[in-house]
Formats: sequence, C-alpha cells, structure tokens
Amino acid sequence: MKRLRRRELFGSIGIAAASFVLSSCLNKQAAVSRKEQRPRVPWPYARLDPEYIAEKVYYSTYRKGCMHNVFKSIVSELADVIGEPYRFFPFDMMSYGSGGISGWGGPCGSLNGAAAVICLFAKENRVSMALSSELLAWYERTALPIYIPKEMEPQMEIPAVVSNSILCHVSVSNWCRVSGHKVGSKQQDQRCERLTADIAKKTVELLNSSFDGEFTAGEYLNEEVRECMSCHAKGGKGENTKGKMYCGSCHFSLATEHPPLEAKRL
Amino acid sequence: MKRLRRRELFGSIGIAAASFVLSSCLNKQAAVSRKEQRPRVPWPYARLDPEYIAEKVYYSTYRKGCMHNVFKSIVSELADVIGEPYRFFPFDMMSYGSGGISGWGGPCGSLNGAAAVICLFAKENRVSMALSSELLAWYERTALPIYIPKEMEPQMEIPAVVSNSILCHVSVSNWCRVSGHKVGSKQQDQRCERLTADIAKKTVELLNSSFDGEFTAGEYLNEEVRECMSCHAKGGKGENTKGKMYCGSCHFSLATEHPPLEAKRL
Repeated sequence: MKRLRRRELFGSIGIAAASFVLSSCLNKQAAVSRKEQRPRVPWPYARLDPEYIAEKVYYSTYRKGCMHNVFKSIVSELADVIGEPYRFFPFDMMSYGSGGISGWGGPCGSLNGAAAVICLFAKENRVSMALSSELLAWYERTALPIYIPKEMEPQMEIPAVVSNSILCHVSVSNWCRVSGHKVGSKQQDQRCERLTADIAKKTVELLNSSFDGEFTAGEYLNEEVRECMSCHAKGGKGENTKGKMYCGSCHFSLATEHPPLEAKRL
Repeated sequence: MKRLRRRELFGSIGIAAASFVLSSCLNKQAAVSRKEQRPRVPWPYARLDPEYIAEKVYYSTYRKGCMHNVFKSIVSELADVIGEPYRFFPFDMMSYGSGGISGWGGPCGSLNGAAAVICLFAKENRVSMALSSELLAWYERTALPIYIPKEMEPQMEIPAVVSNSILCHVSVSNWCRVSGHKVGSKQQDQRCERLTADIAKKTVELLNSSFDGEFTAGEYLNEEVRECMSCHAKGGKGENTKGKMYCGSCHFSLATEHPPLEAKRL
C-alpha cells in the first residue's frame, strides 16, 4: 500500500499557465528554439465535481463516441476553470477509440479516454499507472452502469452487470448475455451511455483524491490473476505472457487447455 | 471496395496553418470568443518517408513507451515540415498506452498511438476508421516484426510471428510460444521495438497513400469473423456481440463452448 503525495502528482498551475501565455506570442523560429516554453505534461488540474461531470457526459451533444466524450468533457472543463493551454488540444482526435478502436472491440473507449486524461495530469508515469490501474480494476469488477439519468424513461431499466474485462467486445457481450438485451438495441446503447458517465465520474474522483493527497494505491490484481501470473509472468516457471486483465474472461476452461492444477481451479 | 479521394481525407494545410498563426497572438479573452480559430482536426499532413520514420522510431531515445514513440515520432516530424500547431501537443500524455494501457495487456500500444495519429489527420471519422481498420487487420495477420535494424547484433535473430490479435497480451504470448523466448527477455524487448518501427512505417504508408488519393479500403474482416458475426452481430440470429478482432484468438475451441456447427468449424 502506497500513498502518493500531492506534490508528486501535480505540477504547478501558475508556472505552467504563465509559461504558456508567454510562449503563445512568440514567432515560430523563437518558439522552436525555446522548447522549455511548451505547455508541458502534467497540464494543470483543479478539483472538479464528479456528479457534475457525470451529468455533462451523459447529456453531452458531442456525438463523437465514448472516448472523445470522456476526454473532452473532463479536459475542456479545465479550460473554463484554468484557461490555457486547453484551447489548443485537438479534441476530435479522440474519436478513434469508439467501440474499442474503430469498432474492433478492443479497450472500452471510455477507459482509453480516461487513461489519457489521467496521464495528462499525472506528474510521473508511475502515478499515472497507479491511477489508471485503479480505474481499470474498478471497471472490470463492478456491476455497471450505476448512473441513473434524472430524466429516465420508466421503461428503460438497465441491468447492472460485472463485465470481468476492460475490453469493449467482452464487456458488451457479457452485458447482453446477462441482461437478455440485444447488441445495438436501445437498451445496450443506453447502457454504454450511462457507463461512460460512470467512468468519467470515477476518473474525476481518482484525480481529486490524488490532488488532495488522499489517493492510496490498492492491490488491483485479483487472486486468480496473481495465481496465474505467479507462473506465467516474468520470473515465473512459464515466463510466457504479460498483462493484468482477468484471465477467465478469455481462458474459459482450464480443464481443456491447461496441464492439471489443483481441483478447485478446474 | 471504395476509393477515398484526397479532398475527402485531408484539410487544407495553408488555411489551417494560417488560422493557427493568427490565433496564437490573440489574448485569452479574444481567443475563447473565436473558437473557429482553434487548430481544428484534421491537422495538416505532408508526405513522410516511411523508411525514415521506421529508423526514427527504432533509434528513438524518448523512452516513454511504444504508444508515445509511434505518436511523437510521426507527429513531431510534421512540426519540422509544417511548423504549427504541432508545438502545443502534450506528447507525454501518450505514454499511458504502454503494455496495452498501463501494462494491462489491452491494445498493442503502438496500434493505439497509430490510430490516434490517423484520427488526427483524417478529415472524417469514416476515413479514420477505414485507415485504422486496414492497419489493425494488417497487424493481426502479418508475421512481425519485419524491420531489421542496420546495426543488428548477429545473435539477435528475432523470429517473425503472426499475432492473430491486436492485443498486447495475446500478441506477446503468441510470440513467446512460437519463438521459444521468454517474456521480458532481451529478445522479446527487441521484438517489440522492431514491431513499433513496423507499425509507424505502415501508418505513414497508409497516410501517404490517402494523401495521394490512392488508398483503397479492402475487406478487413476475415472469413471466420464474417461467419461468426453473420449470426452474433446486430441483425443476426444471436445479436449478442460486437467487434472485428479474430474470434479464434480467445474462443479457442468451439467444440466445448458452442452449439453444433458444420464439422469443418469444430
């Protein structure tokens, strides 16, 4: 268990903002030769209201997909609070993550956008990784969506399901299987819209917690993953894989694929 | 088969660059009220040399991971060719993608970075999706790495293996299984460094091809995925999943999991 201090996580808002304002009026020649005046990562962060961000995401009119929605809803909010350098970010670039990168079913686009948000504000890579891992583990193991829109249609009751995966394909498939709703249905679209609000809210909660010096990195590998990786990861007997995702979301049956283990694992 | 024309894909370099230079000297108040002067997506693109980019990526000293390396190597190159607005991008944000997002084994970080690069330059979402899908399908089905460094140590012969997946976890596992090398070994590190050069090169080839009006979107779903999705995707009998990844990379054995299909599929 490790507590990350505020000073380790966030840069100075004043210095970064002043540096940017100064640099914005330089001509190209001068700017290229003064690389230190670029608006460097971490960009300044200020506490945001998680509930407000969830609402903003759910009622967003961006219509450029879940990754874009999470990223722009949080980062553009800082433009109103702090000002520069947020104006210059090419937000529409983040639309690529929808449906797990151009519909391929890879990572949940909201998580991909949230991890980018975290990395933009975290001072060091190890802090970004700890916060992202906390978010990904929460997503993998929590029955979602939690968010309920204020103006909910009575007939749109959306079951909360544990996805057991950070991948769009697996997450959507599990939700369809458990809920009985079809892929591409109004219900499944609604489930993903609420999920996006949940992820944005959780991201802001994590950032606020770090900003306040309260974030404590937990154990995000569950017991099964730890057991598998004790053999398969670097330093183990197998030494043939890497990752932190829940193994059982793809390795459905160890009985037909794996050398004998103790009975409880089969 | 659909040909995407140059005018559909890329914005005007002149207009975008001039717009940015103008906006960079406005004060904050004026800038906020003139949103149209933001450096909008698509950012200007100019033909790059794929071989040069592969070298740049392989010999990079960034050391912030594969996603960051691919993204910064390509995008920063445009800063030298075109100038603004590239100076303002917070490149270090892209370090979050390493190891499939903070080491979780999700999407290959180089692909995640490449998809962002493509989306930054593509004029429309459908063009970005077509180019990204071409890249992802190529990665999934091509024996990689192809790139051989000029100063190769003779003992570092790195086998080329088809990953059958866009995911870091699966891609690395398959490579370790076929090559016999361990995860985290000097060979596996070298394999990923070369792979990163390959992906950056392919990305630039695709962008150049589109820039020249030569890109032709192919059929990126292979026969097996089309067969599975004809039932499982929206509009099919099952209607319970989404995605374009090769099904067999996780659904190892239909015999134990699936209702009977014709013999050849079991």
